[in-house]
Amino acid sequence: MPVPGPLNGVTVVDLTRVLAGPFCTMILSDLGARVIKVEAPGRGDDAREYGPFVNGKSAYFISVNRGKESIALDLKNDADRAIFEKLLEQADIVAENFRPGTMEKLGYGWETLHARYPKLIYAAVSGFGHTGPHSKRPAYDMVVQAMGGIMSITGQPGGEPTRVGMSIGDVAAGLYTAIGVNAALYHRAMTGEATKIDIGMLDCQMALMENAIVRYSATGEIPGPLGGRHPSITPFQVFPTANGHMIVAGGNDTMYRRFCELIERPDLIDDPRYLTNRSRNENHDSLEAEISAVLKTRTTEAWLEMFDEAGVPASGINNVEQVINHPQARPRNMINDVEDPKAGKLQIAGNPVKLSGFEDPSSRETAPDVDEDRAKILRELGI
Amino acid sequence: MPVPGPLNGVTVVDLTRVLAGPFCTMILSDLGARVIKVEAPGRGDDAREYGPFVNGKSAYFISVNRGKESIALDLKNDADRAIFEKLLEQADIVAENFRPGTMEKLGYGWETLHARYPKLIYAAVSGFGHTGPHSKRPAYDMVVQAMGGIMSITGQPGGEPTRVGMSIGDVAAGLYTAIGVNAALYHRAMTGEATKIDIGMLDCQMALMENAIVRYSATGEIPGPLGGRHPSITPFQVFPTANGHMIVAGGNDTMYRRFCELIERPDLIDDPRYLTNRSRNENHDSLEAEISAVLKTRTTEAWLEMFDEAGVPASGINNVEQVINHPQARPRNMINDVEDPKAGKLQIAGNPVKLSGFEDPSSRETAPDVDEDRAKILRELGI
Repeated sequence: MPVPGPLNGVTVVDLTRVLAGPFCTMILSDLGARVIKVEAPGRGDDAREYGPFVNGKSAYFISVNRGKESIALDLKNDADRAIFEKLLEQADIVAENFRPGTMEKLGYGWETLHARYPKLIYAAVSGFGHTGPHSKRPAYDMVVQAMGGIMSITGQPGGEPTRVGMSIGDVAAGLYTAIGVNAALYHRAMTGEATKIDIGMLDCQMALMENAIVRYSATGEIPGPLGGRHPSITPFQVFPTANGHMIVAGGNDTMYRRFCELIERPDLIDDPRYLTNRSRNENHDSLEAEISAVLKTRTTEAWLEMFDEAGVPASGINNVEQVINHPQARPRNMINDVEDPKAGKLQIAGNPVKLSGFEDPSSRETAPDVDEDRAKILRELGI
Repeated sequence: MPVPGPLNGVTVVDLTRVLAGPFCTMILSDLGARVIKVEAPGRGDDAREYGPFVNGKSAYFISVNRGKESIALDLKNDADRAIFEKLLEQADIVAENFRPGTMEKLGYGWETLHARYPKLIYAAVSGFGHTGPHSKRPAYDMVVQAMGGIMSITGQPGGEPTRVGMSIGDVAAGLYTAIGVNAALYHRAMTGEATKIDIGMLDCQMALMENAIVRYSATGEIPGPLGGRHPSITPFQVFPTANGHMIVAGGNDTMYRRFCELIERPDLIDDPRYLTNRSRNENHDSLEAEISAVLKTRTTEAWLEMFDEAGVPASGINNVEQVINHPQARPRNMINDVEDPKAGKLQIAGNPVKLSGFEDPSSRETAPDVDEDRAKILRELGI
């Protein structure tokens, strides 16, 4: 029988709230770790107040905290601190996304914890990281999306500034933290040493900029938003159709030629302006006009049928309903069911890290209520 | 003296091309692993042909392949296959992002490799993963951005479909693959067992959708693009100013109150429509109009000075030049220098995974030319 995941046996004491930290510990949980949320007594994680709500419970909270446990502890209260410290004794990882300095004020800074629990890995997510002149400033997803440059290259040319529709500021930080935690677990397994992981949300946005930073460095040109197209591949963009829009990704010469034949414009293949990706990209506007004129003559569905059969990469602009019903979604267990005692049945995203020899469930345990697992946890700690 | 990173001593044999796979192995390299690119003889990785070019060398290629080594091998040639197999004998990880089935055709599928090299971890990135009805279809970043839903929630309401300005389809897959590889290294350290990691780019897009999937599941409403705002937090969005735009992130009641006082609209604090985030979100349009009217009266810089001092999270919409010059960028080593013998000095993004006890360099080795490290690698293999 397969075990839950490679992090089976790993325990995470999770002080994180809202999104960046909880997204990381969700991944750790999906990989088999036990995640114990330590929440403020009373209302707990702020994300419990984020909609949409079903029968008073936040569906948003459920989606990011499925499969975790919860105990409410006041880290300024001595009795609760004693419980917290017992938890740390048995934990592999402590995770937090407080403002830098908060853990030190509580007496739980990295130096203190490392001296007392030398095997404990410490994962911190903050807006700007634990060092540098802006370290102590507040940040949210929206701040780092704007500050880190991704909004300057997303949107229509000359249009309004556009946010990436999901919280990439938080989510990217969660992903990089998960990478750091797993690398630290490996390092500890090899050497016995524990590590502090210090992730700044702004740092992660810079790391995501892909070709934009080196492009500016090489050319001195500041990249701007390009709407629905890629800066250096053509055709690789949104086109209008008879009933909406679609994308076509002619990523190399072979795909481009096949595409031109399918749309019955073989003349575009040998046109000297469009012979290579480099020349197609330089002559983007005229090629876009040629292709748009053809694609407008049929529906998205008609083109897709033709392109799919010929192996030309293309897609409609799927909405969330279409995503959930995508033929690949259920077979890959990417849409999971969760059954919550209050909110009932919900669908949430699954775990994209598919690993041989481990379970890949199609359903998940729901998220806990605040303090729901106190009795069990205290019993285990012998308190 | 600090060691390069937690993956010190780990060797990656890297068959990946273009972006999703190379982005993953760049992260592994940044974490201290040795990454040996195995490239097709002649032109090598397709990304070597992606601009911008400096003195004929792709700056794009350099930014994603810094610090790696290169050997050119034809995996259909017996002598080269023998070298490749020698490499695998000494490797910890083999990574590839071919179309599913390609490695099997070469005689290097997971089953075969696992039988022959039982400690070798196998990391595969593909458009749709190695299972499911769409597994063998081609995909590129643009395809999964459109197919996976992120484009349906990014952009202006009623506007043209909008691509996320960086290649989030590729980059997200690279990040999840890096998580899987590190988790597999930990598992191998604990049990001796190797794992296959099977990452689908489309799966990763679904995993990134954050609240959109559960939102649809809970409410039946299909989320659409919201321009510069967050779906469930208000005020948390782009506003016009006297000389451009800025974002303000009033993520909780305290921040909101402080913000209203700073803009001299204390009446907005006690207005029953705006008392809680929930009510502010329900009355988004009227509150947006009130705030916009005030923020239009001064420049972005004037507001930022005031908000920064008061600790209200805010930012201008930074372009790439502003990102590179951000006060936090160099102190956090997030802008690294690279010196290439052909392309000269360039700036690229650094590693956001900051780990205690390891180096965090401010400069990087450049990317290799095709086959540049052949002699050294063959000597090490005793060939």
